Amino acid sequence: MRIAIDAMGGDAGPRAVVQGAALTALNQPGLHLELFGPQAQLADEIANLPRHLAAAESHLSVHHAPDVIRQDQSLSEALRRGADTSMARMLAHVANGQADAGVSAGNTGALMALARRHLGMVANMPRPAISTAIPTRNEGRCYLLDLGANVDVSAARLVDFACMGEAMARHVDGLESPRVALLNVGSEGTKGSAAVREADARLREREALNYGGFVEGDDVFSGAADVIVCDGFVGNAVLKASEGLARMLIERVQATLEASWSGRLVGLLARPALRRLKGELDPVRYNGASLLGLAGIVIKSHGSAEATGFAYAVQRAVREVNQDLPSHLARELAGGRSQCRTALNKSKGE
Amino acid sequence: MRIAIDAMGGDAGPRAVVQGAALTALNQPGLHLELFGPQAQLADEIANLPRHLAAAESHLSVHHAPDVIRQDQSLSEALRRGADTSMARMLAHVANGQADAGVSAGNTGALMALARRHLGMVANMPRPAISTAIPTRNEGRCYLLDLGANVDVSAARLVDFACMGEAMARHVDGLESPRVALLNVGSEGTKGSAAVREADARLREREALNYGGFVEGDDVFSGAADVIVCDGFVGNAVLKASEGLARMLIERVQATLEASWSGRLVGLLARPALRRLKGELDPVRYNGASLLGLAGIVIKSHGSAEATGFAYAVQRAVREVNQDLPSHLARELAGGRSQCRTALNKSKGE
Repeated sequence: MRIAIDAMGGDAGPRAVVQGAALTALNQPGLHLELFGPQAQLADEIANLPRHLAAAESHLSVHHAPDVIRQDQSLSEALRRGADTSMARMLAHVANGQADAGVSAGNTGALMALARRHLGMVANMPRPAISTAIPTRNEGRCYLLDLGANVDVSAARLVDFACMGEAMARHVDGLESPRVALLNVGSEGTKGSAAVREADARLREREALNYGGFVEGDDVFSGAADVIVCDGFVGNAVLKASEGLARMLIERVQATLEASWSGRLVGLLARPALRRLKGELDPVRYNGASLLGLAGIVIKSHGSAEATGFAYAVQRAVREVNQDLPSHLARELAGGRSQCRTALNKSKGE
Repeated sequence: MRIAIDAMGGDAGPRAVVQGAALTALNQPGLHLELFGPQAQLADEIANLPRHLAAAESHLSVHHAPDVIRQDQSLSEALRRGADTSMARMLAHVANGQADAGVSAGNTGALMALARRHLGMVANMPRPAISTAIPTRNEGRCYLLDLGANVDVSAARLVDFACMGEAMARHVDGLESPRVALLNVGSEGTKGSAAVREADARLREREALNYGGFVEGDDVFSGAADVIVCDGFVGNAVLKASEGLARMLIERVQATLEASWSGRLVGLLARPALRRLKGELDPVRYNGASLLGLAGIVIKSHGSAEATGFAYAVQRAVREVNQDLPSHLARELAGGRSQCRTALNKSKGE
């Protein structure tokens, strides 16, 4: 398996990305990682890999790309920079079949637009949706989507999100009948925006879908659903607020534990556990986010991911390649947006 | 000062409410609390107050209301129950001037609708907005609004929210020039929904407002702004997701600390601190939420607030009475919604 990697997208430069790639290569026999970015800089990072990662060198290759799309660039600026960027070359590599999937920690808007341009969409989906697995109270996880790409969405788009998230949970996580829910401001049918209420009505009509109706914000973490659907504005706000809160909470727990003399000892003992927890609870940084609806596999890693975080994003790509997610999406969403899970409905009817 | 209290709204019945009221009365000399609910039941709760709260008895009085609006009732059902409910009688008491403010832990939708009906709005505001103070990383707080009452809002409503939140931070918290921001999916002007981008343009025109542009979800907790504005769908989702995450995180911290034998000791020592922290980080449960834009003061306490949480909501009411918030809002928002902070603009121009 070959995964193409935009090595220049991360906030901290290519080091974390190259180390993350090396980490995955060591843990995943048969995986080859193709790194895109300035040749000399990437060769240097590979030559200077820490000793425990040095054995990965033979599984990494470098493809020169002189230019970089920055995190703070506007979409139009990013698109103007064009074909010489590490992101565009990485995506072109995936598009012409030289790699099975692509991973980038770069500018989300640019990644979505360029991925759509290079790979195209399945089943007339207008744009990719972004989804990541959120850790839940019962040690499970919940796919939340959309996470920032699509604002002011229609009921039809919310239904698309539900179908794509459900298909991902079924095929990639092996859930037989994933529980799908719509995020709303209350559980009653009379509440919420017009688009949400209409999407609810449409989802109720799909008998093949294990649709449970409305949930509220706290259910993102309660384990009440396997897939929670909302528009990109809401999903982005919820995810980023959660990141901010998790960071603050861990700081406060540490400070609270260290506030007394006995606490100082407790705080010291607890520090490694808290550090681990902080990682586990930072969903995007530690899981990677899937761009759904593309005719190919592209994973977005968090811009400020460290090596371990980036490695998770590469592993996510490997899993989606193994399960051939885009083919399932293409087949199940085929026949237009209103036909999601046609195949299943048919086989039930027969 | 007299505060009217709907004693029947909380999830756990009137005990937590009556005890929370007693707690505030003990800490706040000169405060009289008027409790609404079934006479016999409330008299019983007062007679059975725990010993440390028993001295509050002379500061509590009971007003009979035979009926109750339940948390799970739809708005139309709630409104049909009408004038005999503890919530409606409490609000009528505030409306006819027999109390300076009202507090309820009951059904939010019913509270908004009944409060609007009984008290009316200032400056042609169409409906109340809900706001609460969120704890931030720098030990500060940030007012987030709207929190669930208004979905699909226009740019004009977002501007109203900004003006009301700013006025609250200025008058109630004594900030000279509160930093106001709009929640968006990115900090660039080209991102976000049409309403958010138009609200941004309108807010930039108000020179008297300390408006800092767009912020993202993590800034709710970063301390980057004193007031963050969004539509009620987004605010509700962010707040409830934060509650859910805080609950999960504290559980996990406890479990993580107790996972080893040395950890078990650490976990035991840390338990009281974690319990305290859990409370501090549950903003609605511990702060109460203000219904803004009413021609009167109404505070919503969390439905599952315990006595301490309910006491915070009553204290919030006392603060808003002391600062006479509705009069400030009425004056500053007067002259139509587009004129917020006219008074300040004028005095600057003169």
